[in-house]
Amino acid sequence: MTITITAFEASPDRGQGLARDMRVRWALEEVGQRYDVRLVSFAAMKQPAHKALHPFGQIPTYEEGGLALFESGAIILHIAQARPGLLPADPDARARAIMWIFAALGTVEPPIIELEQGGYTPADIWHAARVPLLEQRIRTRLADLSAHLGDADWLDGEFSAGDLMMVMVLRRAEGTGLIEEHPNLAAYVARGEARPAYQRAFADQLAVFTSGGQ
Amino acid sequence: MTITITAFEASPDRGQGLARDMRVRWALEEVGQRYDVRLVSFAAMKQPAHKALHPFGQIPTYEEGGLALFESGAIILHIAQARPGLLPADPDARARAIMWIFAALGTVEPPIIELEQGGYTPADIWHAARVPLLEQRIRTRLADLSAHLGDADWLDGEFSAGDLMMVMVLRRAEGTGLIEEHPNLAAYVARGEARPAYQRAFADQLAVFTSGGQ
Repeated sequence: MTITITAFEASPDRGQGLARDMRVRWALEEVGQRYDVRLVSFAAMKQPAHKALHPFGQIPTYEEGGLALFESGAIILHIAQARPGLLPADPDARARAIMWIFAALGTVEPPIIELEQGGYTPADIWHAARVPLLEQRIRTRLADLSAHLGDADWLDGEFSAGDLMMVMVLRRAEGTGLIEEHPNLAAYVARGEARPAYQRAFADQLAVFTSGGQ
Repeated sequence: MTITITAFEASPDRGQGLARDMRVRWALEEVGQRYDVRLVSFAAMKQPAHKALHPFGQIPTYEEGGLALFESGAIILHIAQARPGLLPADPDARARAIMWIFAALGTVEPPIIELEQGGYTPADIWHAARVPLLEQRIRTRLADLSAHLGDADWLDGEFSAGDLMMVMVLRRAEGTGLIEEHPNLAAYVARGEARPAYQRAFADQLAVFTSGGQ
């Protein structure tokens, strides 16, 4: 059955792989699943046709037969539950791997996104002054994450969908210097990026930018 | 097998049911599962014994035999996948119900939490000035959610774990007046609160406060 995902027609990150379609591409590559990509403009994302797929008017979406999903976490969990390769077989280990998807999205990502998003609008002229506070919130999370990871390769045994999501979330903090304060987290991100499935997904999302004429 | 969750010894919301243990209590009540509660102080949450359960030093946690989980979304999904009552049987409908857990936590909750959390520390003296911006971000999400819900009772067919999480997230905006701008969302929250399982869970978490001597 054909799988179609949506991605930005003109990615704001200019092909750095930080947009949320990269997470879904990586997951599909890990399980060896081919997929099609439909590019959408910022204007089209807010139109009824796209909002019927994604009520909040964002990307990515995922279509497979009669099923339409949004939210990168839900899409990756669906891929991981439907195909082998991203979740362990043992039920308890499986629950913990899924837990790390939620931890990446619910606990580690929010202060990173808050730091990244602020200051874009004239109404948010206070952002620069808040940066030290937001960085401290991120540091607290990263210190806990670094302590948990220790010298392990992955968060809980073998590489899982939880690691995939955590690596992608940590990549959102690139350029802040905060990841580098914990060498084990920097090495963890590098291990994720070195995976062949990541490399294929990255090249594919970059090709949208380099061939897109933006 | 005994299930034990953790909750605040002294809940910051004084028993209003906004702490994240309420979500887990409600889910356990919906599936008719008895559970024990271990109360933890703010100091104990940051100690090694608790951080072995929850690396980020928060509540709730969930213990069942050899399995220990944190993140309310992961706990509720685990409960919903292990016992009937919180997810539909049809695979596509099941994936969509799980999607709404992620949407509640990843798309609707973040700006609500940002509005709620700001201004607690002296370093965040800009919070009051940012309130209109944060309220606008919440309004955008709620307008999309209201449009999706329309005149349906629940987000996708029967009540599910996705509705449970969305109702709890919307409750975090209580007192802002923003939910009331959409009568269908206010009625949706009220429908959730009227469920017998919600009522039992609410009474149990309130009893911690009223009997706790805080």
